[in-house]
Amino acid sequence: MQDLLRVLVMPEPHAPMKWWGWGDPSRGEELPPHVLGFLRSELGVSAEPVPPVRLEDVVLPDAELPEGPRRTLEQAVGEAWVRDDRVTRVTHAAGKGYPDLVRLRAGQASPAPDAVVYPASAAEVRAVLEGCASDRIAVVPFGGGTSVVGGVEPLHDGMGAVISLDLARMGTLEGVDERSLTADFGPGMRGPAVEQALAARNLTLGHFPQSFEYATVGGWVATRSAGQASTGYGSIEKLVCGLRCVTPEGEIELSAIPATAAGPGMRQLLVGSEGVLGVITQATLEVCPQPQERRYEGWTFRSFEEGIEAFRTLEQRGVVPDVARLSDEHETSLSLALAGGDSLARRAGLGYMRVRGYGGGCIVVVGFEGERADTARRSALAGKLLRRAGGLALGSAPGRSWERGRYDGPYLRDALLGHGVMAETLETAHEWSRLLELRRAVCDAISGALDQRGTPGLVMCHVSHLYPSGASLYFTFLAPQERGTELEQWHAVKTAACDAIVRVGGTITHHHAIGRDHVPWMHNEIGELGIEALRSVKQRLDPAGIMNPGKLLPAEAPA
Amino acid sequence: MQDLLRVLVMPEPHAPMKWWGWGDPSRGEELPPHVLGFLRSELGVSAEPVPPVRLEDVVLPDAELPEGPRRTLEQAVGEAWVRDDRVTRVTHAAGKGYPDLVRLRAGQASPAPDAVVYPASAAEVRAVLEGCASDRIAVVPFGGGTSVVGGVEPLHDGMGAVISLDLARMGTLEGVDERSLTADFGPGMRGPAVEQALAARNLTLGHFPQSFEYATVGGWVATRSAGQASTGYGSIEKLVCGLRCVTPEGEIELSAIPATAAGPGMRQLLVGSEGVLGVITQATLEVCPQPQERRYEGWTFRSFEEGIEAFRTLEQRGVVPDVARLSDEHETSLSLALAGGDSLARRAGLGYMRVRGYGGGCIVVVGFEGERADTARRSALAGKLLRRAGGLALGSAPGRSWERGRYDGPYLRDALLGHGVMAETLETAHEWSRLLELRRAVCDAISGALDQRGTPGLVMCHVSHLYPSGASLYFTFLAPQERGTELEQWHAVKTAACDAIVRVGGTITHHHAIGRDHVPWMHNEIGELGIEALRSVKQRLDPAGIMNPGKLLPAEAPA
Repeated sequence: MQDLLRVLVMPEPHAPMKWWGWGDPSRGEELPPHVLGFLRSELGVSAEPVPPVRLEDVVLPDAELPEGPRRTLEQAVGEAWVRDDRVTRVTHAAGKGYPDLVRLRAGQASPAPDAVVYPASAAEVRAVLEGCASDRIAVVPFGGGTSVVGGVEPLHDGMGAVISLDLARMGTLEGVDERSLTADFGPGMRGPAVEQALAARNLTLGHFPQSFEYATVGGWVATRSAGQASTGYGSIEKLVCGLRCVTPEGEIELSAIPATAAGPGMRQLLVGSEGVLGVITQATLEVCPQPQERRYEGWTFRSFEEGIEAFRTLEQRGVVPDVARLSDEHETSLSLALAGGDSLARRAGLGYMRVRGYGGGCIVVVGFEGERADTARRSALAGKLLRRAGGLALGSAPGRSWERGRYDGPYLRDALLGHGVMAETLETAHEWSRLLELRRAVCDAISGALDQRGTPGLVMCHVSHLYPSGASLYFTFLAPQERGTELEQWHAVKTAACDAIVRVGGTITHHHAIGRDHVPWMHNEIGELGIEALRSVKQRLDPAGIMNPGKLLPAEAPA
Repeated sequence: MQDLLRVLVMPEPHAPMKWWGWGDPSRGEELPPHVLGFLRSELGVSAEPVPPVRLEDVVLPDAELPEGPRRTLEQAVGEAWVRDDRVTRVTHAAGKGYPDLVRLRAGQASPAPDAVVYPASAAEVRAVLEGCASDRIAVVPFGGGTSVVGGVEPLHDGMGAVISLDLARMGTLEGVDERSLTADFGPGMRGPAVEQALAARNLTLGHFPQSFEYATVGGWVATRSAGQASTGYGSIEKLVCGLRCVTPEGEIELSAIPATAAGPGMRQLLVGSEGVLGVITQATLEVCPQPQERRYEGWTFRSFEEGIEAFRTLEQRGVVPDVARLSDEHETSLSLALAGGDSLARRAGLGYMRVRGYGGGCIVVVGFEGERADTARRSALAGKLLRRAGGLALGSAPGRSWERGRYDGPYLRDALLGHGVMAETLETAHEWSRLLELRRAVCDAISGALDQRGTPGLVMCHVSHLYPSGASLYFTFLAPQERGTELEQWHAVKTAACDAIVRVGGTITHHHAIGRDHVPWMHNEIGELGIEALRSVKQRLDPAGIMNPGKLLPAEAPA
């Protein structure tokens, strides 16, 4: 009751998120009857949803922040901004990965932070880190809390206590250089706030990950984020011009410059550092004019291979869409099954595709954003190349439908979890010449692992980011949950998929980051000596080892 | 004599370069009479060139490689590939910076490497580094030897001896993935060899720095190089997909992938590492189809400011030339004075500009490369924007003239040095909103320093690389040399220019790298903590401190 009152009387820095799942707590998610029917017949799942436990029934470990360190933190940020009420601790106990949600829905909020601390400035961050370093308290930087790889899990890792450092109060647009088209962002600024502030000046960042509604600028930079339009606008690593990062040993300030040859890429050393080196307290990013027009179009190809070749041609001929998405046969047919029940339009569309020889094909969405004359020109050029590559134009309806649902995935996942469906995604990237082999290997690994658990499921894949030398692959799989051993089931499938990725030489993550879940594959990514190089940087910037322990870097072998 | 014979009977890995200057030893450089006249009247320099001393008169320190370490090196690479003859040591005693050439022309080849070692494979590099680490011998990786910032100066820095590690034998194209448009290069491959090997497959790397004829892939990657067409093709940091780097502690192998979110940017940590962490033994770079057409055009603007605004508009409207160069008023008038004596065409052109109100203006060259339809379209669009921004089209002659002379700068410098002219260049980059202030500050600093030395000179500037958020500025200055104190004179002017750059917040180098000359400004670039972070990486990868000592990182303050 005390807790509840405290929450109610204190200003909230952000609109809240469901503690047990995704998004606005007032938004309910129900599966339409035809979807439920499909899942029942395909996966044999239950019709009756099982709700998460009530917040008051969640098992929460006692907060164990000693009085002295607590006072240090209160001096750093003000008493009101060191919180340990139930809802605050539970909402900072995990990110939004599948294992996180399984745990939370079942009422397990352990590990949880001993307190959540809300700094309002870089100086306050500095004071917090200094205090925590001397008190041996682990610090988990927390932006939107949307990590799907365990990046914000509050692990103690041998420290005396652990706090979440929520950057919500550092969420303002701090400056815009309209001539250079750059803007200075506070790390806690969420996607909608970013776009709203920029739109007032007719600008956009163009960064729209599926987590857009809750994810923050600091989180994007710290996890090397890519968004749905990053084929056009560039992933966050390409947009970073300047950075400020506060570490336990002081601040690194890299001013905003367009390019430099001054030694190793320090900006790129901090981009993707996932809170293990320090806290990003400001980012200067490239922005650009609001597009006059967003033009999204649907196409279909007879096969995934044909679609890949079409995308490769677009990219390598320099006719690059800002949004480019190619679903494989499985994702295409599942989307169609889940999309529209039995509407006339849907049946007519399917009929058209079948008649033209594209039944069982692969849906493509391409989007062009910018000045009207330019989107028209690019769309026409792309159209010519896509048709020549075997594509069939489907008009603007599939594009509009994709755009409408572009942030819905995580809401849908909550509903699926309620019905006992494991819904998980993972992603990689590779050179064009290896993509088909990579897709095959990963799909086979996931299907094989699901079969082995006795829970066969649906596995699908899409391409979502194009580069001159290759593309990303994004995998989604659905399967009936193993009741009681959900996490073991997930772990077996995840491991099989990741092993397959590195076997074919793909990167272990294209935009979800390493976090906790991908740590075992960092050796494959950069080798033992690469890990040692990063460890040496961490040792210098965070000698006490307080920064986001257990993430990004494998634990050192005991001496 | 023994030495000379040895050189003559052993295969040379590369076409040679003048030991005292730039380029083909058989190519003489003479200044045409009108240029000489101009320099005499403007700078008061001598008409009679002073040649460099003869090779046999060069003062060369004794080679001091002890017998044991020498045997280790010979075992690593073969006896024939450990050399210490005079010409080999002198040609590896310095790069091609102004102070290097002043020193060499005067017959001072100290410091010189005690030996030059030519490995043929990554395994041989590994063996050399292991041997040198245990024998405490400094290793200076040497590609084309074209550094203009002292990057290949063989400094002992407290080691027992120093070798140059010449990568000329690792100079082949090791593979091409024509579907992914990537190629694996040996580090010792020079520009012409790169383009020749790629042209056979109708591909290009598109990397054309002024040092193109001699510089190598490994050097480009190690110094974060940008070339004259990098506005279009991207600087080397954007082209790197995969890397192999051998350090004294082992190899880091980063496979070729188009993008990743797996933690800090390891590729970008090695790009720009300037040999202080290890030796780049292979680079996988993006390549692209040979352009059907190269279309270079000349324009003129009434002022540098007007030209900058025109370039900003092009870049931010997405109508980006592959080559973009804007000379300020001083560079423009000097180029015109040096260009064509008194030809009819030149006088007609100048007359046309004057009549149209562009007398004393700024010349622009824009180049478009690619498919014919696309270059025509982009050129037309750019033309519209340039005209609207105040530009006057001059046709293709200025572009062709620039293209013809694009690699001539360093040859010209040799001739100028012969006549007692200090000719030096330096570069920076900044956001669009700060470029005018930056140019003013640097030009004033250089002029002021020259005046203070009693050697007033000519200072000029051009823009040569465009980015959405800013551009590079490249400064050239000419002044009469202070006989006997050439290096003090240079140091005073260089220091004034660099201090001015960092005062306005520009980067200390846009494409020349840090080397030896820019070390004092690394603090301004990445701060003390940034330097400490890099030092910790170096400590881990090169604990004996043998790799290219004295470059990139400031010496640690004595404990």
